Parts: sequence; C-alpha cells; structure tokens
Amino acid sequence: MNGGGAGKLADPKEDPLPGVDTYKNFNTIDWVREKSKGRDRLREIHSKSKESLWALLLSISDAFSGWLLMLLVGLMAGAVAAAIDITTHWLTDMKDGVCLVGFWFNHEHCCSTSNQTTFLEWDRCPQWQSWAQLITGTSQGGFAYMVDYLMYMFWALLFAFLAVALVGAFGSHASGSGIPEIKTILSGFIFRGFLGKWTLVIKTVTMVLAVSSGLAVGKEGPLVHVACCCANVLCHHFTKFRQNEAKRREVLSAAAAVGVSVAFEAPIGGVLFSLEEVSYYFSLKTLCRSFFAALVAAYTLHSINPFGSGRHGPFDVNFHADWHPVELAPFILLGIFGGLWGALFIKANIAWCHTRKSTRLGRCPVTEVLLVMALTALLAFPNIYTRMSGEELLSKLFDDCSLFNSSLLCGYQQGNSAASRPAGEGLRTALWQLALALLFKMIITIITFGIKVPSGVFIPSMVVGAIAGRLLGVGMKQLAYHHHDWMLSRDWCSPRRDCITPALYAVVGAAACLGGVTRMTVSLVVIMFEVTGRREHIMPLLAATMTSKWVAGAFVRVGFDEALIRLKGYPFLEPKDEIEHRSLAKDVMRPRKSDPALAVLTQDGMTLGQVEALVKSTCFSGFPVVVSQQSKRLVGFVLRRDLLVAIDDARRRQKGVVSASQVLFRQHAPTQPPKAPPHLRLRDILDLSPFTISDRMPMGITVDIFRKLGLRQCLVTHNGRLLGIITKKDIVKHMAQIANRDPDSVFLN
Amino acid sequence: MNGGGAGKLADPKEDPLPGVDTYKNFNTIDWVREKSKGRDRLREIHSKSKESLWALLLSISDAFSGWLLMLLVGLMAGAVAAAIDITTHWLTDMKDGVCLVGFWFNHEHCCSTSNQTTFLEWDRCPQWQSWAQLITGTSQGGFAYMVDYLMYMFWALLFAFLAVALVGAFGSHASGSGIPEIKTILSGFIFRGFLGKWTLVIKTVTMVLAVSSGLAVGKEGPLVHVACCCANVLCHHFTKFRQNEAKRREVLSAAAAVGVSVAFEAPIGGVLFSLEEVSYYFSLKTLCRSFFAALVAAYTLHSINPFGSGRHGPFDVNFHADWHPVELAPFILLGIFGGLWGALFIKANIAWCHTRKSTRLGRCPVTEVLLVMALTALLAFPNIYTRMSGEELLSKLFDDCSLFNSSLLCGYQQGNSAASRPAGEGLRTALWQLALALLFKMIITIITFGIKVPSGVFIPSMVVGAIAGRLLGVGMKQLAYHHHDWMLSRDWCSPRRDCITPALYAVVGAAACLGGVTRMTVSLVVIMFEVTGRREHIMPLLAATMTSKWVAGAFVRVGFDEALIRLKGYPFLEPKDEIEHRSLAKDVMRPRKSDPALAVLTQDGMTLGQVEALVKSTCFSGFPVVVSQQSKRLVGFVLRRDLLVAIDDARRRQKGVVSASQVLFRQHAPTQPPKAPPHLRLRDILDLSPFTISDRMPMGITVDIFRKLGLRQCLVTHNGRLLGIITKKDIVKHMAQIANRDPDSVFLN
Repeated sequence: MNGGGAGKLADPKEDPLPGVDTYKNFNTIDWVREKSKGRDRLREIHSKSKESLWALLLSISDAFSGWLLMLLVGLMAGAVAAAIDITTHWLTDMKDGVCLVGFWFNHEHCCSTSNQTTFLEWDRCPQWQSWAQLITGTSQGGFAYMVDYLMYMFWALLFAFLAVALVGAFGSHASGSGIPEIKTILSGFIFRGFLGKWTLVIKTVTMVLAVSSGLAVGKEGPLVHVACCCANVLCHHFTKFRQNEAKRREVLSAAAAVGVSVAFEAPIGGVLFSLEEVSYYFSLKTLCRSFFAALVAAYTLHSINPFGSGRHGPFDVNFHADWHPVELAPFILLGIFGGLWGALFIKANIAWCHTRKSTRLGRCPVTEVLLVMALTALLAFPNIYTRMSGEELLSKLFDDCSLFNSSLLCGYQQGNSAASRPAGEGLRTALWQLALALLFKMIITIITFGIKVPSGVFIPSMVVGAIAGRLLGVGMKQLAYHHHDWMLSRDWCSPRRDCITPALYAVVGAAACLGGVTRMTVSLVVIMFEVTGRREHIMPLLAATMTSKWVAGAFVRVGFDEALIRLKGYPFLEPKDEIEHRSLAKDVMRPRKSDPALAVLTQDGMTLGQVEALVKSTCFSGFPVVVSQQSKRLVGFVLRRDLLVAIDDARRRQKGVVSASQVLFRQHAPTQPPKAPPHLRLRDILDLSPFTISDRMPMGITVDIFRKLGLRQCLVTHNGRLLGIITKKDIVKHMAQIANRDPDSVFLN
Repeated sequence: MNGGGAGKLADPKEDPLPGVDTYKNFNTIDWVREKSKGRDRLREIHSKSKESLWALLLSISDAFSGWLLMLLVGLMAGAVAAAIDITTHWLTDMKDGVCLVGFWFNHEHCCSTSNQTTFLEWDRCPQWQSWAQLITGTSQGGFAYMVDYLMYMFWALLFAFLAVALVGAFGSHASGSGIPEIKTILSGFIFRGFLGKWTLVIKTVTMVLAVSSGLAVGKEGPLVHVACCCANVLCHHFTKFRQNEAKRREVLSAAAAVGVSVAFEAPIGGVLFSLEEVSYYFSLKTLCRSFFAALVAAYTLHSINPFGSGRHGPFDVNFHADWHPVELAPFILLGIFGGLWGALFIKANIAWCHTRKSTRLGRCPVTEVLLVMALTALLAFPNIYTRMSGEELLSKLFDDCSLFNSSLLCGYQQGNSAASRPAGEGLRTALWQLALALLFKMIITIITFGIKVPSGVFIPSMVVGAIAGRLLGVGMKQLAYHHHDWMLSRDWCSPRRDCITPALYAVVGAAACLGGVTRMTVSLVVIMFEVTGRREHIMPLLAATMTSKWVAGAFVRVGFDEALIRLKGYPFLEPKDEIEHRSLAKDVMRPRKSDPALAVLTQDGMTLGQVEALVKSTCFSGFPVVVSQQSKRLVGFVLRRDLLVAIDDARRRQKGVVSASQVLFRQHAPTQPPKAPPHLRLRDILDLSPFTISDRMPMGITVDIFRKLGLRQCLVTHNGRLLGIITKKDIVKHMAQIANRDPDSVFLN
C-alpha cells in the first residue's frame, strides 16, 4: 500500500537533479537544512516580487497560503469528524434496534421525529423498536432478552470483524491511536504512507466500526491521526508545504490540535495538547495557526451538529456546582487513584503487548479481535452501564442530578428538601452496577489496547476515572448527609443545602485517570474546563491531574504514548529527558576505538575511482571532506545521494570524465600534467558549514543541541582535527543505554 | 539604588573562587553554561542522595522547591494585587468624595454598609458625600460643580505628583510598564536592581497613585513587573534559583503569567501571554508550573476579593449573546480599526518619545507629568465617561442592556417588546459623550506613554476599542431595527428578537485595539474569552484580532513592546525575525578585515607576563586558546574573569610563580630547563568545548543557533583554523543593520 504520504515528491521540473535531496523512508530529516531551504525559497520569491505585478501577487498568495491551508484543514477535519460522529451514533444504536421510519435514523433522531415522545422519556417511542420487538413482537420476558443479547453480540462481532479485516487488508497503519507515530514523525522521522489518503479512508471507516462495536476504544487518538492525514493530503496541493518537510511538520502540529478540538469541542485545549504532548517544535506562528484551524474545525463540526443543538459539548455537561476547599482532599484521593491506574494500565498493557508478540496471538490479529470482542460484548450487555457506549456513559456520569432526572443514579429518597437526600434503593442498585462496570472496564481496557483496530486511550481511561469519581462523590454526599454536624462540613454543608456534586467528582476522576495514563497536565485541565465550561472547576482538576501525574511517575517514568514509542522502537529523542550521565561526545561518536577509521574524502588528490569505491564499500548517508588525510582539517560534508547523482550526471554529460579523473572539492584547481583527464569539480554539492562540536563536549549539551536545532548528524573534532561523527540515532541509542534499556531495540534503518 | 536584584550573589562558601562566574551588569548570560551548571548540580545531589537519608530528604526537597516557590509567588503576587486593587478603588473614589462612616471606605463599600441603598441605585446613599456636599452642603448648582471639579483636579495632581516624585527619588526602574525590560531580561540580559525589592515597593505604590490619579494608564503591564519582582525576591531564598540565571528566568516566565492572571483573572490567558509575548524560552515544565502559579494567584486575589463577591472577573461581564455569521463583517471592521489605531499609536508615541528626548521636556519629568495630568483632569471631568476610571468605563461598555439597566447607554425608547427598541434621547446623549470620549482617549493615550510613572498600555488601548465597538454596535442595532426586512437580517433579526448585542461589539473592539498595539493573538483571545466566559465569543474575537494584527503589521512591523525595546536600544534578539539577507558568518565575525588580529592565547609557550599584558591591553570577556599561533587550531576558550582570578590566586598561593613562568593550557607539561620557574597550569579553567561554526555558515542558521541555544559567543573557523568570533551583540547589531536601523543605537556595555 502506498498512500503517497509523508515523503517528498521528486518533481523533475523543480529539482534539477532528480532524487537528490529526498529522504529515505524511516530516516530522519535535517531540520536546519529544511529550514534553510525554506528561507532560500522565501528570499527568491521576495526578490522576484519586485519585478512584476504577477510575481507580487504570487508572493502575496504564497504568504497567505499557510492560512488558506489551515482553513481547509479545519473545514475538512470538522466535516470528517461530523460524519464519524453521525455514523457512530447510528451504528451504535443499531446494536439495540432499528427505526421503523427509516433504518438510517439513530435512536434519538428516530424518536425526536415522533410526536409521541415526552420530555422525560425521550428515548421511548413506537417508531424505535428493539430487535426483540421486531422479531418476537414483544420486549418483555427472557426470550426477548436473549434475542436482544444475541443481536447485540452479532452486530458487535460483525463490526469488529469488518474493522480488523479492513485494517488487515488495506491499511496496517490504521491500527492503534496513531499518536506515537505522529509524535515520531513530528520529531523529524520519515514514515511514508502513514499519513496518506488511503490511511485516511481506512482509518475513518474502521474507527467508526471499532467504536460502534462496543470495544473499549475511544475515538480521540484516531481523530488526531485522521486530522493529520487530512492535513498531509491537503499539503500536496501547496508547493510551499509539499517540498519542505519542516514546514509540513508545522502543519501537522496544527492538525493534531484540530483533532483534539473536534474530539472534545475544545479548541484551546487542543492547541495546548499539541504543544504539550504531540509537537516537537511549536513556533509562535504555529500557535496562532493551529488555534485558527482548531476553531474552524470546531465550528464546522458544530454546524453540521452531530451533538444536537443546545447540547454543551460531546458530553453535554451542564452543572453549576461550586466546591469547598475541604473537598480538595477527595479530589487528591482521586488523583492518587488516577495515578495508580495510569501506572497499572501502562505496565499491564505493555506486558500484555510483549506477551502478544511472543505468542501465537500476535500472528492471528483477526482471532484476537474477535475473542476480545466476544468477551467484551458477552460481559457488557447485562450491565446497562457497560452496554452503552463510552461517550454515553460519560455523559450520564457527568450529569448532575437535577429534579427532573429519573435515572437510577439519581435515585435518592424524596425528602422534604431537594438537597442532601439519603440514598434510595435505585441508587444502591446503580452503585453496584457501577462498581462491577469499573472492574470490567479496567480489565477489558488493559487487554484491548494493541489489537489491530483503531483505538484511542482517552475515552476508556476517562470512563474508569469517571466511574470511580462518581462512586466517591456519592459516598461523600452520603457522608455529608449523615454527618452534617461534623466540624468540617458544618459551615458549608447544612441539611438544607446541596453541598456535594457527584458529577464534579466524576469529571475530576476522569481527568485524573486520563492524566495518569497520558501525563498531560495543563492541556488536560484546559480540555476538561472547556468540556464543563466552568472556571471554578479548574482548581480541582489541576489538583487531581498533578497528583495523578506525580503518583504515576513514581511507578512508570513515561506516559503511555512514550511507552508505545519505546515498545515499537522508533528513534524518538524525547524532549523532556535530561542526561544525568557524565559522558562526553567522544564516548558516543563513531568510529569507536575498535572500529575502522572514519571514511573521509579529501578535497583533492582522490580519483573518481577511489571515491566510487569508498562510496560503494560503505553505507553511510554522507562523508566528511578534509584538507588531507594527514591534517584531518575539516572542509565540509557531502551527502551520499548528492555525490552519487553528481557523479552519475558527470559521467553522462561531462566529456572525458573517467575513473582516473581527479575529484576536486576545493575552489581552485591545482596544476596537473597536460595529458591527465579533466577534473571533476564537486564543490557545489559540498555543505561548507557542517555542524561541528568538540570531542570534550558533554553529552548533556550535545543532546540539547540535537534537540533544539533538529540536527541529523554532527561532526566531532579535537583541536581542529576531525575525529568522528555523531548521528541522531547514536544519541537515541546512547540514551537508551544509560537508561538501562537495550540500545538495539531502537529501530534503525 | 540597588535592589540586589537580578545579579547572582557571590557566596564564598559555595564558590571556591569568589567573583568568578558572575556576570557584569548589562551583559548577556550564557544559557548553555547555566544549564550545564544546573545539570552538574542535579547530578551531584542525585549521587549524594544515595549516601544518607538526610541527603535523600534534601534531594526530594530540592526537587519540590520549584513547586514551593511557585506556590509562594502565586500567594504573594495575588496578595499584592489584591492590595493594589483595594487601594486603587479607594483612592479613585476619593477624587469624588468621602465616606462619612469612615474615610477608608470606598464608594461602593460605603453604600453597601448602608441599608438605605436600593438595588437600582446602589451608588446613592447619605453616607457617601461628594466634596461639594461636604464643603458647600449641596450637590446642586454651578458652585457645587466647580468645587467638585477643583477637588477632582487637586487630588489628581496630588496623586500624580506623589507618583512621579517617588519614582524620581527612589526608583527610576519603576516607570513605564516594565514589559520591554522583562522581555530583555528573559532573553538573557543582566539588569541589576530592575527586579529588586525596592523596585517592587516603589512600583506598587506609584502604580496605585498613577492609576488612581486618572492618567490614561493601566495597571496590567506594571502588575506583570510587580509579579516578576515578587518572584525574583523569593528566588533569593532558594539556592537552586539564586545561583542559576537560567533557572531564575524560568521562574520569571511563570511570574509574567501570574501578573496577567491577576490583572484579568485569566490564568490560562496569562500562561499563553507569557508563552506568546514575554518569554524567550518556555519549556513544558515552565508551562505546568506557571499555570499552577497563575491559578494560585487568581484564587488568592479572588478570596481577598476586591471585585466584590458574585462579580465575573474585573469587568463584571455577564451576557449570553449569540451572534450571526453576517456580523463577522462589522467585527472585521473593528479589527481594521484596531489595526489602524495600533499602528497610529505606536508611530505617534514613538515619535513623541523621540521629541521628548530631544527637547527640554525630557529633562523635567515632574513638570511633564503634572502638565499631562492637568490636561487629562481638566478635559476628563466634564464627561462622565472619561471621569470614571478606565476599568469602570470598560465594565460599563461591556455591560449588556438588561431590562433593569438604567444607564444612559441603555436609554432605548420603551416599546411593546423588550427587544430591538429605537434609540431614545438618553442614548443619543450617551453616544455624543462617547464619541468625544473616544477622541479624548486617543489623543491623551498617545501623549501619556513614556512619562515617568508606572503605566500599562492594556487598559487605555482597550478603552479606545471598547468605545469604538460600542458605538458601532449601537449603530448596527439601530440599522437592524430600522431595516429588519433586509434580506441579510431577515432570518435572524425579526422585530421580536434582540439580535445584536452592542456589549459584544465593545468586547471585540477592545480586543482588536489591544491586538493592534501589542500584536498578541491567541493569548489575547483566550484572555478575553476568560473575561467574558462565553466560548461562542471566541470566533468574533479571533476574527478581529487577526485582522487587527495584519492591518497594524502592514504599517508598523513590530508591536509596541518591541518598538520600545528598540527605542531603548536593549540588545534583544527577536525570536520571530527571519534573516532574509544572504550574509555569511565571516561577514559578521570580528575581527573585520581592517581590525587588528584576534587576541588569542596559545596552549603553551606564553609566559605569565605575556598573558597579563594581553589581558590588560584588551577588554574582551574571553580569549580563545589555540595550539600555536601558526596552526591556529582551536583548543578551548577561557573567560577573562576566570583567567584573572586564577592568576591572582596563583600569584598569592603558588610558590615561585613569577612573570617569566610559562602558562600551560595543555594536559602534559613539556620538559624545560632545570632552572626555569615553575609552570602555571590553567587547564582547569579552560572550556574545552566552545561552540564553533564554519565561516561559510549562513547568518540565517547562525542566528537560529544563537536564539535556540542561547549562546553568548561562538568561534568561527575555516578548515579547522580559528578565524574570529561572533557575539550575541554582533548579531543584534547585524540585524539592526540589515533592517536599515542604526546599529550603534544598540545599547552596548
């Protein structure tokens, strides 16, 4: 499969030497080179723009093309997200029943077109029939229940099978959340096809199927991937972004923000997510553009309106609860729970993934998906809280008990006052079901991740936390009701006042568990703030997420995405890791002491044959050029591809160039005997300003240089003499080594 | 005055060579060096922590000291901001009258303690008497008006005089907003005393006086400065931050967020402001910490509660208006106005500052302040909209016309429906007054900035925009009322519905004008979103601020703060500027062709006397060390201060070191004649890994390296031989040169 994705197209019209300057798949880009290319391009356009009106217009359109691209990304991602939402709702409801008016209506839509629906029971209307009603004619009794159960399992297995079959047949890139790969790509990795149009199509379709099937997967991570695919596909229509890997990564950073923005209707949170979690370099220009795109996408989604008008975001959160400083204690408790859950989830899931790799399960992804699906559906159906989709469950848990709320969760005994009522029978049932649901979700989430369907970790983590939070909140509420004369609660929790909001605990718990898994802090708080829309909730959210991050960090150092990156062995240079080791550049550079000497070219004195032999005998992607083998004084650096193309070009076009011709990298040709073959001058392809560091440079600083400048390689000198070379992969390996991980687990090509 | 501010204290216990390693005032710090120092310190603490329990506890407390510091900064800045708010309200009201119950009550507080106040006329109560009432016994008639007028001017002039006198006597650093200086400090500049405790005290007091006097100055910029002072003062109690200039700057970045957070009760906006506008390096750790500190500060301020309980932020914005896509047109119009105003303000104010410098005005700051104050007070008193403080005016303009609103701005004719009423007489009067107020504010704002009192640009700019926006909004409302059958307005603006909210126009206008002046985008939108609390308003705000930024950018390239930095000549390397020029490192490095050769030391062969003579004859802050004068192969770099201290130390402690002693920078001493004086070995103070670049490095990349790594200097080599050196100041000068500004305007020391 070739999505024509991340790679640069070689355009013979624009590239005088086709093939030169492109990166190979699974290679790392040179950010400095790309930026410099962008600067040259801009300079050319600017200087041309003074020549004619047409060129001026072109230069203006070039300046605004970034904004136009952002607008298109926002519109496209918003539209795709809306389509995904609508289809997911429809397919999810199809597991329960069908609309007689038209099978393409979902449950809510079906009943809202009916005039026989009352306000309190919006979900009961004659037009919507469960499968049992349709087949047996009744919805009561054990047989009808069995029919519903079987139909639920049938659809779930069908959707799951379709998803895994499509992923297996057309798009292996579509499985998982895609965020680890996007992080790696944004750090400068080339991963062709991962963001292509085929991946976009397959990921969109399979993600709808996977989410609808009822697997414990969310659609937030995949939405980020989809948004990035949209951006990458659109990039191909803009020369500025097609030809520059660095510029394209700026667009992808913005697209990541767009993905979260449409997932949660949280544009600001999306931008901060991209900044904090996904992006490697995030310039101020990107900040502004990604905010614009995220906003456009959120508006597009909102106007196509899958959530129904009047709803507040995806979870329809609408409560105005305040909280008392004393409640920070249970919020921090939720943070500790979230942290423990995060650590447990990461450890258990990574261990499970290792097991999968080494056993037969890994070779039969379809069987595995069907097994997990069957287990999920079998256990999920009997419990109403696990039967509904994750988003629906979150909506229920985030919903405060208003007076008109008839759900079991709000089954308080009706007393004299609306506030602080004792728990009734209904609530007790609900709590039992919720506790079972918590256990079920925790186990099933751990074994679900890593199967070959699109799967996001956001919603499942949030569900675990929201259930725990709601349970704690109800408990706190009962505690406050039964002990309202305690000193702590006396002044704010009188029997007349509703002092504790279990829904807020659910929100905080959801944030804590998500924080424990992903280690997001600010962006998570802002996303949840945008979801609830109440700034009073920022403090509890921050308290819980910070606690959760610290607690989780005490057990597992990295977040889930980074753990996956390590599991998959991508050469990702983490932006946060500090090197504590006292190593120097000379300890990391190649060649090592036992290796053969560094392959170098000299600026003169080598024949074409010698150069070709050297290139053929090695597989390095570039060669340093020195003044002479004795002095080892560095002149420049030449890329292997440039060299090959230039030699090939010379042999074809330049007369008299033979293997005995001298290759010259210096400016002025030396005099030579009259009958010698002509020189081959290659100074033009020489990079005269390669990065150099001293061999005594501490690795802490070296890593900083690589990270901040986005270098691909750096030459090491001692007192002006060339000693060796350090590449980004050497550094990633070195960091793995000092962290006591296997350096050879790093994926190299 | 010495606030003991930004500089590092030399602690003889911790610094074996006192004086070594400190930076001189007005110098640039070396970020790499500072970070490396921080890394070494951390490594030492970590390795020690394994030795004893006490060391382990110390290492844990060290890890959390950053968070503790953030908590303290938040608490202190919040408390100071609350004190400032309370005092400012009180002093502002003192210009109008006095509370008979106690002179320390402000108007609102005075009347809220009275039980004779009604809901609609909260500001009329017998306890609060205007000066005319107190002196003449009546508030009616021309004489009473004259008394009030004179008392208003008296207090205004008194406050202004006190402010300028205090600034002149004790704290010249307290004038202006402080943001340009903070930006420069954050980029690595040393500016002693600017963030000291004296500056904190004087700035706080004079800022209260200046704002209360009624000058067209805001307190947002000064609040950022005050928060940074708090942070810097607190840093002195933490070894980790006192001794490391880079770490301290991280704290200051967070403090800038705190300042905006307390100014607008907008923690998220504050963090983004610091990220987008003020900070130079903003790591993810800083993001998290500054968010925490900003939140703590906002809560502290809120619980001390100067805004009165139940208010929504500083401007008490509380309307739920939606908007129609058609209205984007007037919003963009406001953006254009904001951009034009921003460009006009910057050009006019900078020109006025130049005039001030070159005329007698600049030498008599007290006279200037009193003149501006007299003019302001004289013209402001007759118009109720200019008489009130900027914040109060903004509150009025941001207030939607609810049914109970009796202000003139809501003086619509009472019709059958509450919505879309025609304008009444009261509204027309109000519009005239507003139009005059707009003209007045525009002129007075331009001439006020640059006078020697603390002055922020936020509120005055917002006032201009809010007035313009409100005027446009009222106009649009009338247009929609009179033409509600127009095609465009028909479907959303029926006579029955209130379709246009002038208050929203005021908010958008305020954002547009502030955006035009400061060129903020995302942070501004988020701040205004937090002020209004309605996510529907994000889109209009973004449309207006983006337009305003582009329009303003077409006339004046940089924002007001950068313009001030250039005016004051600080060596600030702007993070956004791209070099378009095709220059190379060799064109910028020193020595130039006509200069004497670069002063270098050799690793051996030089006597102490020669070294001392070289150091004395030059004023460079460091010297490259080469293998030999002939080969010019670089060994390392030694700082002037290190060299001086080491020589001094050796002459005092080491026996036999005389001027004829050989100075050795190499590892192994050469053999020497038996009677020669002993060597002076200085390899320990040699930096063996100085940064080097090739002379052919394009300046675009060189500038990037300096910016991203925070270098202070970089050595330039050609084929392994040392050629010259580039310092940060050379680069700032070069950038000024290619932008056709006078390179010698850059402040050098």
